[in-house]
Amino acid sequence: MSDTFDTATVLADLTTAEKASLCLGSSFWNTRAIDRLGVPAITMSDGPHGLRRQSARADHVGAGGSIPATCFPTASALGSTWNAELVRAVGEALGEEARALGVSILLGPGINIKRSPLCGRNFEYFAEDPHVSGVLGAAWVDGVQSRGVGASLKHYAVNNQETDRLRVSAEVDERTLREIYLAGFERVVREASPWTVMCSYNKVNGEYASQHRGLLTTILREEWGFEGVVVSDWGAVHDRVAALAAGLDLEMPPKLGMSDAEIVAAVTDGRLDLADLDRAARRVLELVRRAVGSGGAPDGGFDVAGHHELARRAAREGAVLLRNDAGLLPLAAAPGRRYALVGELARTPQFQGTGSSRVNPTRLENILDELRRLLPGDARLDFAAGYRLEPEHDEETDAALLEQARTAARGADAAIVVLGLLPGDESEGYDRTHLQLPAPQIESLRAVAEECRDVVAVLVDGSVVDVSTVEPHAGAILECRLGGQAAGGAIADLLLGLAAPSGRLAETIPVRLQDVPSHLNFPGEEGSVRYGEGVFVGYRGFDATDRPVAYPFGHGLTYTTFGYDDLAVAVHGSADDGTLTVEVGLTVTNTGPRVGQEVVQVYVGDRAAPVHRPPHELRAFAKVSLRPGESQPVTFALGARDFAYWSTGHGWTVAPGTHTIHVGASSRDLRLTVDVELAATPRRVPLTLMSTLDEWIADPVAGAALREAVGNDDQGRPRGVFADAAVARTIGNFPVSSLAVFPNVGFDHATLQDIMERVRISR
Amino acid sequence: MSDTFDTATVLADLTTAEKASLCLGSSFWNTRAIDRLGVPAITMSDGPHGLRRQSARADHVGAGGSIPATCFPTASALGSTWNAELVRAVGEALGEEARALGVSILLGPGINIKRSPLCGRNFEYFAEDPHVSGVLGAAWVDGVQSRGVGASLKHYAVNNQETDRLRVSAEVDERTLREIYLAGFERVVREASPWTVMCSYNKVNGEYASQHRGLLTTILREEWGFEGVVVSDWGAVHDRVAALAAGLDLEMPPKLGMSDAEIVAAVTDGRLDLADLDRAARRVLELVRRAVGSGGAPDGGFDVAGHHELARRAAREGAVLLRNDAGLLPLAAAPGRRYALVGELARTPQFQGTGSSRVNPTRLENILDELRRLLPGDARLDFAAGYRLEPEHDEETDAALLEQARTAARGADAAIVVLGLLPGDESEGYDRTHLQLPAPQIESLRAVAEECRDVVAVLVDGSVVDVSTVEPHAGAILECRLGGQAAGGAIADLLLGLAAPSGRLAETIPVRLQDVPSHLNFPGEEGSVRYGEGVFVGYRGFDATDRPVAYPFGHGLTYTTFGYDDLAVAVHGSADDGTLTVEVGLTVTNTGPRVGQEVVQVYVGDRAAPVHRPPHELRAFAKVSLRPGESQPVTFALGARDFAYWSTGHGWTVAPGTHTIHVGASSRDLRLTVDVELAATPRRVPLTLMSTLDEWIADPVAGAALREAVGNDDQGRPRGVFADAAVARTIGNFPVSSLAVFPNVGFDHATLQDIMERVRISR
Repeated sequence: MSDTFDTATVLADLTTAEKASLCLGSSFWNTRAIDRLGVPAITMSDGPHGLRRQSARADHVGAGGSIPATCFPTASALGSTWNAELVRAVGEALGEEARALGVSILLGPGINIKRSPLCGRNFEYFAEDPHVSGVLGAAWVDGVQSRGVGASLKHYAVNNQETDRLRVSAEVDERTLREIYLAGFERVVREASPWTVMCSYNKVNGEYASQHRGLLTTILREEWGFEGVVVSDWGAVHDRVAALAAGLDLEMPPKLGMSDAEIVAAVTDGRLDLADLDRAARRVLELVRRAVGSGGAPDGGFDVAGHHELARRAAREGAVLLRNDAGLLPLAAAPGRRYALVGELARTPQFQGTGSSRVNPTRLENILDELRRLLPGDARLDFAAGYRLEPEHDEETDAALLEQARTAARGADAAIVVLGLLPGDESEGYDRTHLQLPAPQIESLRAVAEECRDVVAVLVDGSVVDVSTVEPHAGAILECRLGGQAAGGAIADLLLGLAAPSGRLAETIPVRLQDVPSHLNFPGEEGSVRYGEGVFVGYRGFDATDRPVAYPFGHGLTYTTFGYDDLAVAVHGSADDGTLTVEVGLTVTNTGPRVGQEVVQVYVGDRAAPVHRPPHELRAFAKVSLRPGESQPVTFALGARDFAYWSTGHGWTVAPGTHTIHVGASSRDLRLTVDVELAATPRRVPLTLMSTLDEWIADPVAGAALREAVGNDDQGRPRGVFADAAVARTIGNFPVSSLAVFPNVGFDHATLQDIMERVRISR
Repeated sequence: MSDTFDTATVLADLTTAEKASLCLGSSFWNTRAIDRLGVPAITMSDGPHGLRRQSARADHVGAGGSIPATCFPTASALGSTWNAELVRAVGEALGEEARALGVSILLGPGINIKRSPLCGRNFEYFAEDPHVSGVLGAAWVDGVQSRGVGASLKHYAVNNQETDRLRVSAEVDERTLREIYLAGFERVVREASPWTVMCSYNKVNGEYASQHRGLLTTILREEWGFEGVVVSDWGAVHDRVAALAAGLDLEMPPKLGMSDAEIVAAVTDGRLDLADLDRAARRVLELVRRAVGSGGAPDGGFDVAGHHELARRAAREGAVLLRNDAGLLPLAAAPGRRYALVGELARTPQFQGTGSSRVNPTRLENILDELRRLLPGDARLDFAAGYRLEPEHDEETDAALLEQARTAARGADAAIVVLGLLPGDESEGYDRTHLQLPAPQIESLRAVAEECRDVVAVLVDGSVVDVSTVEPHAGAILECRLGGQAAGGAIADLLLGLAAPSGRLAETIPVRLQDVPSHLNFPGEEGSVRYGEGVFVGYRGFDATDRPVAYPFGHGLTYTTFGYDDLAVAVHGSADDGTLTVEVGLTVTNTGPRVGQEVVQVYVGDRAAPVHRPPHELRAFAKVSLRPGESQPVTFALGARDFAYWSTGHGWTVAPGTHTIHVGASSRDLRLTVDVELAATPRRVPLTLMSTLDEWIADPVAGAALREAVGNDDQGRPRGVFADAAVARTIGNFPVSSLAVFPNVGFDHATLQDIMERVRISR
């Protein structure tokens, strides 16, 4: 362990200029050293699914190579594992590689919500759901930080597109912000205490995230208790002084000379409180101290083979078996079989996206070689490229490739066709504009299907593609996402049944792009994007509108089946004092012929709330492995927050009344359902003159008093607003103050003031 | 003509207290008289489809009866006529009745957009489209005001629901506000100069409409040139001083004693500028002077029979023939026919909604009597109630009614089943929660369909109902809306072919409520409603998402067919100077066997805009009557505004490039299409350091300068950001200012400043 310094002593000795200099880097990847006080620089590196540790001469912008590191599955595949333990193990390995390469901070995880399948960077994100993102993000951070390397939780916040990402303002209401876009960040901060949080490029409701005091200080630190450093996304700072005052500590990359001069000038002329600068400098010092204290000298070594094997396991668990008609998969191991393998992507793998997350892998597997290696000796595998990866069109070549694919498929016992997006289709920096797979790939699939009845489509992509062009031609579809350097082997394992698929969709596959709830509001225009669908993102919107989907959120098959039984729920404590616990228990049984893993999903619905909530929302999940015939009890504990909505102006609120708990295998395969009655004291809204007639009548004291004041007519019938129920219904939502000057209502302002006084006294 | 007063003289003589008193009424329906200066009071009355002139003892709230007046078709039916001449004639008749009853201001038209079919007051509004609303609203105002009676254009603005209507804030972005929710108001103000505009109850983006300076002054008066009085909706004023300063002139009903005291106090202590009060008082005086100057003594007389006949004609034109399989309608006039008529609504008509628009009709027709009267002598009509209008359930009665319906239908040549919403289903004050027709009605329809092959469903409702329960049982569907006091005769005329249907849907009939674009955001929660669908209201949203509908906007059949030919388009002038005119001409031919009216609809689409626009939007329509075989040329003139979108911060903008003009019979029956190229100078956005790399490169001067500054490497290959197209694509949306501190980009801030200076000079 290296020697460290004392933060308070150093801070006391720093000049204002030195403090300012600590709040920005010394170079593209390093913090500033203060040599005279023994403060070293520390190094950061891009992630999140592998180290992109650049050598000194390389650059962020250029294609300069990085030092080899394990390319683990991208978040699109890790998110599909629904396996927090596995993601934690990947985090541990990443932490070890970071240590080995002298990196103190790994810039991940990215947990932004997949608001639209078009977002170019979806392959770097986990899910359309904040529970999945939060649980897996926390596991990733835990794993990395267990090795003495800091994480950087990103991109905070509401960064859900690449289009105009450095300027666009995400216009999002408070409830949606809290329930959807911040919930995952909150979980990771509270549960895993990342060393740093990275602010995003965009604006949120008109204010740059880099200078958004509400996000960076009020919510992140004061509410959630974050104590680390807020670092800017690279290039996100436009007003260094405003950013510092709002809570952004460290600017990257440094605008050397410019930003520190601005800070010093602002302190000098009083625009910036010195305490703000001290606070940021202290946080950076503490980060450096923590990094140095837990770090050793980099030795460049890590368990290359072990990490590759872990990457392969993770890739296996991230693959989702969408469809498997007539048990087409796993491929039969009977002697003498002949299989066709079609698709250039089987030979030239696409295993990660483009942009800052691009890793130089230590090894690289492809499906073709791995299948050849794993097939029994007497099996035959005929490969045909089927299509090219270059987008250029050449009819002659295409026709020849199609013919080769037909030849390979003709008479085969089964044909595997590998389809996917091309390099450059998925990247940081721009969004997709459609969900289509390249047309030559579909032609190739169709040609194969004409020659062979049993076709398995293997999809390789980092985000949703239109499966409607695949489904007519493939009895089985295995969606493998961008699975990292060992994806080739992992896919071979799954196809041959050496492992069983256990991934689940962390994002809905829609029937059509136009069906996506955010469709009409993505990616916005004229510098602004309206989050018009509100909380109804992904399955929340599809389910609220009962719109058909191709494959629902949470869906995934395997080579066996499962039964759900004996749902039992027990409610303890109270939502009022935060002690509410709802214990959910059930039994899961492997009802099929093979070992397999089930992802048991708990969804909660709320029919009691005064706000429009999704029919059900994921609140817990567990991945369990069962042998054929084996049963296992599975339990979950839900808390008040799992039933709460965000009430604007009032915060997290549990509506008293009936809530529903569903347990199932996807958002549209809810196997067991039970209602629970939750007690919670309704928030008492003070009665005012702007309260409506209905609200006054509903109040026990005021209602009775008003009825008495209005009184009856000569025949003893109710007068005024109580005379006619049909009329009362049409004016029930008038504030009493407005009604008081209407004729014949039976009360005036003096009456109302008098009743309000009596209501006050009665409480 | 009565004597009038001189406004300036009166104004000069008024005390501050008198001025204040002019800015509120003297009673529920009257303005304040200033007797000492000869200023009389004038009277207002609810509308808009008939006079609800209350006698002195009646009240707004209670069910107190009003003086009989013609109940014309509600706006739901008038909107479906697509006939501005007819609506103008209705307006003239309304003006005459107002004069006769001593009413100076008629509180209509209501032109709010039907954002959701659930809005309880949709029956009072024209359309889901601002062109239809604006054209018909202007015709209505023209007609009323031609008789020396003022209109009150309402409810201004963004009042599209009843739920929490006095407090809810409509959260709507600027482009949507302008293109959808204000466009109709703008047309009516500019074209028809209503004497008054009525502010709505709700808030718009957090500010009460009654005190929204942007709406009441900046847009309404300064932009559109409105010179009349802004009157509050009854009870909409909560801060009289703020409202007055914002541009609200007249408060109704008066908070007598309270509001005037507030105004005087505010002038005294300087919170309110006396000029603001003077301005409002002067406007009210001018309104009174105009009313008195054009009014005569009320004589209580108007052409009762003539107006009834006009109401019948309007009801005929407002009925939409949705479906007419095998020419089921009109009913055959062959001798000896027997028809069944089923449905209590045929005997007890539902002809208007509930609330402030409720009229006490001069006469009342029902379908049963009118059919009996019009059928040839030898035809037989068997009536059965089929269901009850009371919502109470009574199985015995229901079974008996069903059996009677079966008996009537058995063996009939055709059966007419009248279905509709019940009293109280559609009302001011609350919204609907579903689109279903009452279940007993559907049971009755089903029973009839089991006995008789030829079933005609007649729908009577003020807004959209779910037709999926009707369609399986009815070969013809005639949607009649709430057609006023003469609807019974009008429907009989249409069924028997004495007139041909010519209505067109002014609102989409969706397949399911959940498909409606506003569905997830209606009616909002916690005091706020997000207009999350933006401009994609109604058909704009259905078409943008290519979602199936039951019947599209603009749809309507008749007893003949039409051909569209010879579309010709000529472009004149320039969008830059506002002289753009696009002349659209075509020939319409009656290709069927009967006289009929076609509504020729012109839609415009814009593929050139940088904002997300609906595929096509209605910009013009014309209703033409043609004899069998007759052809008629139809021409339209479109202007720049018809192609423009609202650019936030820049206003109405025509995108240079390809626009598409469609002519057709509905939004989904576009018969002829032609592209036009519109020239417009693109708005030059000044280049700054926050402009992106892509924007710099796209600028001819800056792009070349940057390329030159970055230069080439030793081998003559481009350096820095120009070195690699794939990398350039990922950083193209970085502001150059952010990129300048990245390594190896090839430029720094000094380079950029230098180029910006050169760009400035070059212009």
